Amino acid sequence: MSKICAKYIFRTLFRIQEHGSTNATFTNVHRRYASSVNSMSVVYNEYGNPNKVLKTENCQLSKCLQADEVLVKMLMAPVNPSDINMVEGTYFMKPKLPAVAGNEGVGEVLDVGTNVKSLKTGDWVIPNQAGFGTWRTHAVADYPRLRKISNDIPPLSAATIVVNPSTAYRMLKDFGNLKPGDVVIQNSANSAVGQSVIQIAKAWNLRTINIVRGRDNLDDLVEQLKQLGATHVVTEEFSRTPEMKELIKSLGAAPKLALNGVGGKSATELLRHLASKGVMVTYGGMSRQPVVVPTGVFIFKEVTAVGYWNSQWNIENDTSPERDTMFEELCDMIRECKLIPPPCEIFELENYSEAVRSAMEGFQGKKKVLSMQDFQ
Amino acid sequence: MSKICAKYIFRTLFRIQEHGSTNATFTNVHRRYASSVNSMSVVYNEYGNPNKVLKTENCQLSKCLQADEVLVKMLMAPVNPSDINMVEGTYFMKPKLPAVAGNEGVGEVLDVGTNVKSLKTGDWVIPNQAGFGTWRTHAVADYPRLRKISNDIPPLSAATIVVNPSTAYRMLKDFGNLKPGDVVIQNSANSAVGQSVIQIAKAWNLRTINIVRGRDNLDDLVEQLKQLGATHVVTEEFSRTPEMKELIKSLGAAPKLALNGVGGKSATELLRHLASKGVMVTYGGMSRQPVVVPTGVFIFKEVTAVGYWNSQWNIENDTSPERDTMFEELCDMIRECKLIPPPCEIFELENYSEAVRSAMEGFQGKKKVLSMQDFQ
Repeated sequence: MSKICAKYIFRTLFRIQEHGSTNATFTNVHRRYASSVNSMSVVYNEYGNPNKVLKTENCQLSKCLQADEVLVKMLMAPVNPSDINMVEGTYFMKPKLPAVAGNEGVGEVLDVGTNVKSLKTGDWVIPNQAGFGTWRTHAVADYPRLRKISNDIPPLSAATIVVNPSTAYRMLKDFGNLKPGDVVIQNSANSAVGQSVIQIAKAWNLRTINIVRGRDNLDDLVEQLKQLGATHVVTEEFSRTPEMKELIKSLGAAPKLALNGVGGKSATELLRHLASKGVMVTYGGMSRQPVVVPTGVFIFKEVTAVGYWNSQWNIENDTSPERDTMFEELCDMIRECKLIPPPCEIFELENYSEAVRSAMEGFQGKKKVLSMQDFQ
Repeated sequence: MSKICAKYIFRTLFRIQEHGSTNATFTNVHRRYASSVNSMSVVYNEYGNPNKVLKTENCQLSKCLQADEVLVKMLMAPVNPSDINMVEGTYFMKPKLPAVAGNEGVGEVLDVGTNVKSLKTGDWVIPNQAGFGTWRTHAVADYPRLRKISNDIPPLSAATIVVNPSTAYRMLKDFGNLKPGDVVIQNSANSAVGQSVIQIAKAWNLRTINIVRGRDNLDDLVEQLKQLGATHVVTEEFSRTPEMKELIKSLGAAPKLALNGVGGKSATELLRHLASKGVMVTYGGMSRQPVVVPTGVFIFKEVTAVGYWNSQWNIENDTSPERDTMFEELCDMIRECKLIPPPCEIFELENYSEAVRSAMEGFQGKKKVLSMQDFQ
């Protein structure tokens, strides 16, 4: 992506931020003189089809906070596949019912209890762990459940930093012992994780081979991913041709790391191109097919196959310095226009059902994001 | 196995050793006064069906050794599956042709060149790497290609120490970070590697769940493996029943390590019983089916799947202290009757074709071992 293009997008995103911040400040001032806050949440009382079981609920949140509590006005929260699966009851983690939907998002601190030293009014916060319930206008939560995040980045970037950029960052950082110049191969390269992988790899001087499914507007997609920093973008079909071997040969080094968000044949293909002693990290299974590894790939190619689960990493690294460093580095990349969110479509929170339906019809399109900035 | 039973077998093995040593010493004395040694080798000039391409070749080996050379009289050498595959040309390593068959075995040093300080006449040696060519009565080799091994263990144990016990030792030592009391699950438990796993695990106070294929004489096999130290022996069919879960529950801990020599459904079944964050090591693929890993096993169960290739480990650890320690510990176990070879059938070297044909008809029976001890 050219500097001009990146800066344009950055400014556009900032415009959203300014808009949101103004509102939030207004709301904040307004509410200083009320004893409670009128809050709307998207909740579910049973697991099932999100189009049926989700509903809104209004309640008054008291402004008389307990010592450890924080009152947050949510600004933005995306609709992720795992949010949908969690409502369906098919996700590995099941929240207690009734539950507020949404796992990721950013909010602004309106007020804090007397014990809370790490946060103050005006700070931005993201949920520390999955299961927070971000699809609501306001939340009251004990401060350890929240993590401060820079409020000088676009709210859309802050709202979507926890799942996709973090997953991409950790996979590139923790597996394959990568050094600048090394090659990474990934399928599902135009997914939200895939786009983060491309950008973070570029920032770290790693080269990427990006596999996408063939489509009508392939040239546009290739151009889009190359602007993000992709070294090569190829289709699944191309990756099975002899030319793919030539392409890898031209890089002078086979990929040390493969990132698999698809499974099935696509994953087996990644293994074929991986270097000896390489690592394949599985973080998704979009094809709903298992990962098939020929015995010889394990024994003679000495490949290691592992998985990465972001929610679990977050639990195990709740207060780890690695996590602090990660968010600092990701925010730096965002400020430097090196990491932008995938194309998004914004819905007001009250239109959540449209956003959810639209998200369920195909995650391949724009990412659906709920905005609570205009909520009065 | 009871102490009496083990000691009986140990003595039996020693009897073979005494027999071999006597002959070797005789041969040695006899040859001191000859300028060359009459040697017979089993060789192949092309890759193909071992029943067709293998043949014997006689030659005179000069006793005038170069400074780095060692003259070895082979004592015993097994017929391993990888030996067969190497002759067929289907193994990952292809020796230069013409080649002497056989990768594993033990020999006695008859004489050494002037530079050789690490070996002396009467020492026992094993090949340092695969591809040595052990199916012959005598060999002349540079000393770095040979490794001294204790000559106070049975020759059958020394001849079969490099492949199966070493594979079992390394998999139990290097993967899964095992502590005494931990549980290991393996398929193909009655294979030569499987039997080594059972015995080494027992010596290290690890508990084993051993999966075998159902058969007519199942009770005998179960009894045999339990005598070796198996904690539990179950069939593939049983491993798919709810009772298997009960059995694992009764151990108080799920297996941290799974050893897979089969692939296909059997490997997937191992993964089902593995603990979260467990490791599955694939060292063989007897079913000729790939390893199929459901995506959730990688992501949510955080299982790591790797391979182990003994020949490659040997190359990378040619002179490593870990390798010295391993052989010392294995020899200690052999001396203490804690590690015995699987049931073997001995063939004179000149009857190699019968041994090979018999081995190719089914590796499930007794291990075929060639003996060169009576060769004049």
